[in-house]
Amino acid sequence: MTQGTTRSDSRTEATYLIETPQPVERVAEMIADEQSSGTFVDVPSETDALREHHAARIEATTELETVPEPSLPGSKPATDANTNDVSYTRAEVALSFPLENTGTSLPNLMTTVAGNLYELQPLSGIRLVDLDLPDEFAAENPGPQFGIEGTRELVDVHDRPIIGTIVKPNVGLSPADTAEVLEPVVDAGVDFVKDDELIASPPYSPVKERVEAVMDVVNRHEDETGDRVMYACNITGTVDEMLERHDAVKDAGGNCVMVSLQSVGLAAVQALREEADLPIHGHRNGWGALSRCPQLGFSYVAYQQFWRLAGVDHLHVSGLRNKFTESDESVIQSAKAVQRPIAFPDDVAMPVFSSGQWAAQAPDTYDALGNCDLMYLAGGGILGHPDGPAAGVAHLKQGWEAAMEGIPLEEYATDHDALSTALDYYEQ
Amino acid sequence: MTQGTTRSDSRTEATYLIETPQPVERVAEMIADEQSSGTFVDVPSETDALREHHAARIEATTELETVPEPSLPGSKPATDANTNDVSYTRAEVALSFPLENTGTSLPNLMTTVAGNLYELQPLSGIRLVDLDLPDEFAAENPGPQFGIEGTRELVDVHDRPIIGTIVKPNVGLSPADTAEVLEPVVDAGVDFVKDDELIASPPYSPVKERVEAVMDVVNRHEDETGDRVMYACNITGTVDEMLERHDAVKDAGGNCVMVSLQSVGLAAVQALREEADLPIHGHRNGWGALSRCPQLGFSYVAYQQFWRLAGVDHLHVSGLRNKFTESDESVIQSAKAVQRPIAFPDDVAMPVFSSGQWAAQAPDTYDALGNCDLMYLAGGGILGHPDGPAAGVAHLKQGWEAAMEGIPLEEYATDHDALSTALDYYEQ
Repeated sequence: MTQGTTRSDSRTEATYLIETPQPVERVAEMIADEQSSGTFVDVPSETDALREHHAARIEATTELETVPEPSLPGSKPATDANTNDVSYTRAEVALSFPLENTGTSLPNLMTTVAGNLYELQPLSGIRLVDLDLPDEFAAENPGPQFGIEGTRELVDVHDRPIIGTIVKPNVGLSPADTAEVLEPVVDAGVDFVKDDELIASPPYSPVKERVEAVMDVVNRHEDETGDRVMYACNITGTVDEMLERHDAVKDAGGNCVMVSLQSVGLAAVQALREEADLPIHGHRNGWGALSRCPQLGFSYVAYQQFWRLAGVDHLHVSGLRNKFTESDESVIQSAKAVQRPIAFPDDVAMPVFSSGQWAAQAPDTYDALGNCDLMYLAGGGILGHPDGPAAGVAHLKQGWEAAMEGIPLEEYATDHDALSTALDYYEQ
Repeated sequence: MTQGTTRSDSRTEATYLIETPQPVERVAEMIADEQSSGTFVDVPSETDALREHHAARIEATTELETVPEPSLPGSKPATDANTNDVSYTRAEVALSFPLENTGTSLPNLMTTVAGNLYELQPLSGIRLVDLDLPDEFAAENPGPQFGIEGTRELVDVHDRPIIGTIVKPNVGLSPADTAEVLEPVVDAGVDFVKDDELIASPPYSPVKERVEAVMDVVNRHEDETGDRVMYACNITGTVDEMLERHDAVKDAGGNCVMVSLQSVGLAAVQALREEADLPIHGHRNGWGALSRCPQLGFSYVAYQQFWRLAGVDHLHVSGLRNKFTESDESVIQSAKAVQRPIAFPDDVAMPVFSSGQWAAQAPDTYDALGNCDLMYLAGGGILGHPDGPAAGVAHLKQGWEAAMEGIPLEEYATDHDALSTALDYYEQ
């Protein structure tokens, strides 16, 4: 059956949290079978040799709690079960797949570890919680072009988080108006500004015109201060549009492009990375649809690996005490995962903290991560500061100084006015 | 604020099923605000004029049942609520967005109707259940190149479903072995064969070699019978790989390419459609992750519109009494939606029924849809037939003849042996 090529022994290990009314071992076998070779009746040519060589393997099963009701509809108990007394067992199941089944193709890896298995009848829950990839994936996919170190170099910020903000409001703003909104923010001393995910290149603000208007502000600020602000211009669109917009950003002297990852998809990000000369800022809007049900979808620990291998440099992770629904524990797990090598030190991306962030979350964020290799974005935390955006930026820097020096914010605030004012104002 | 362009009054209407511990009207406003313009404190430049022109609008809210427990974790009651007595109200909420906010860009439409809103704190459930797009989307996106009529013409089947099967087993099969497995199936009289979603172009079966081997079988069969079988070759990969594989399929005389839609993403499918000369067979593996929680994600009625506008010709919809978890009601809603024009008669795609299908489901499928404009795929239903694959194909055709003539299967089976044998065998 082989093509004469050398077989690799490398395997992809995928760990799932499952829930099932059927015996866990049997269900693990069914998943393994479905994701390597299976149909609803045996067919003659399905040989033992093929099965053995290409079959997914059960590496471990750990039974967890039992619950009386199914988390998701549509599951069925085993045909030989007593249906008057059905309960649902949760378990962690680790499967492995031969690298040979997928090669190092990311789309085909996705189909294998996160395809039809979500709809299997014995399952009342299934979530991909972890992914342990053989090094071949990181070796043969491009990975982040800039990552943490490259991004730090572009803005020349090395010993603290990259402090940034979002252009808000945005929907309806012309390029000139966008530049006008951004001017005081850039002059306030941020390292980074980004477009909102809702505005890419709509009729009223084409990327080319917007990036030129914004870069005028960025360049003027650099001339005056020597500080180069990074502007992540939202280029989300078709592949051709993204490549064209990437070039427009580059031609205007821009230094970052932003993409709504799930809106364009994995292969489009791969195509962009292939041609890109700028860091790719990955926005994960839509992520909630894949993650909010605890018994379904993906953990970010697993999911973010696809985007990093495809070449994304910055990955959003929400933030502690965010205005959305993700728990602090999950946020920190995500950020740590984004900073953890898949196979090589330079395949890490920079986690982007945002949503309701101000100085208050800096100490806990630093304590949990143990480093400051992150972007820390604030909207109202900068623009809403009572003493203006420069004080807004200053209070964030002061909050991080306090965090990294292990000094309580209230104590540090006694001789740092911007922080002091922020503590009084935002804690109301 | 305008660019001097003519404004369109067209609006995209998105309907959500939500669940919330907060007042429904207020939550609808928050969603509308988040998806058009919002931050966590008011910022000075957020003007009334911008808001009015670009804001999402609440078109309708209909309160449904109240439930005592939240469907999803992470939601919070209103800050002024009595937290000792929280219940969760379900409601249908229709929002509309000005076309000007997104233009006719599909990725940006996705971000707008299915982006950050899944993580909003007042929501313990949110599902996009319907999408009513202005005609501009179908006018300015390519849509299916072949659709139902074009696909029928390629296989010259006009008055019944297109009968097909899946290459199983597949993982590990060399191109020569694939052709060997397919030969009896093609000779059995199917109209259509497709690769499994798990095999695209792995090291042991590159697309070029596989399609050449398979087309030898298809061509020989056509020479002998005059019948042209459609082979959907799985070309899933990066954009460059898909374009190269598409050309390899075309060069080998192939007449269809298959893509795992969610593994490559929307913009990659758009890029493929841009260059494609062959029908695109859309496999939706991974769909369960977006759909299985009834209070989260998408309905296929909404979701499939993105893929059709991007240019997919065939869309999987599972099947009645399938081996997966989707209800029959949902399957039929999906299939009807795929056949329903978005704006123009030729923007429809062909629904693909598969998973545990044999003649038994033909009558109910036909009754529910009222037409036979579909693909009807069977694996074991063909290969597992006791009298061989030719009898397997024959029994499916007979089952559909019976369904379309309104004759009960048992009655039709009295003088149709293949159907008769199948009824005895599969109903065990």
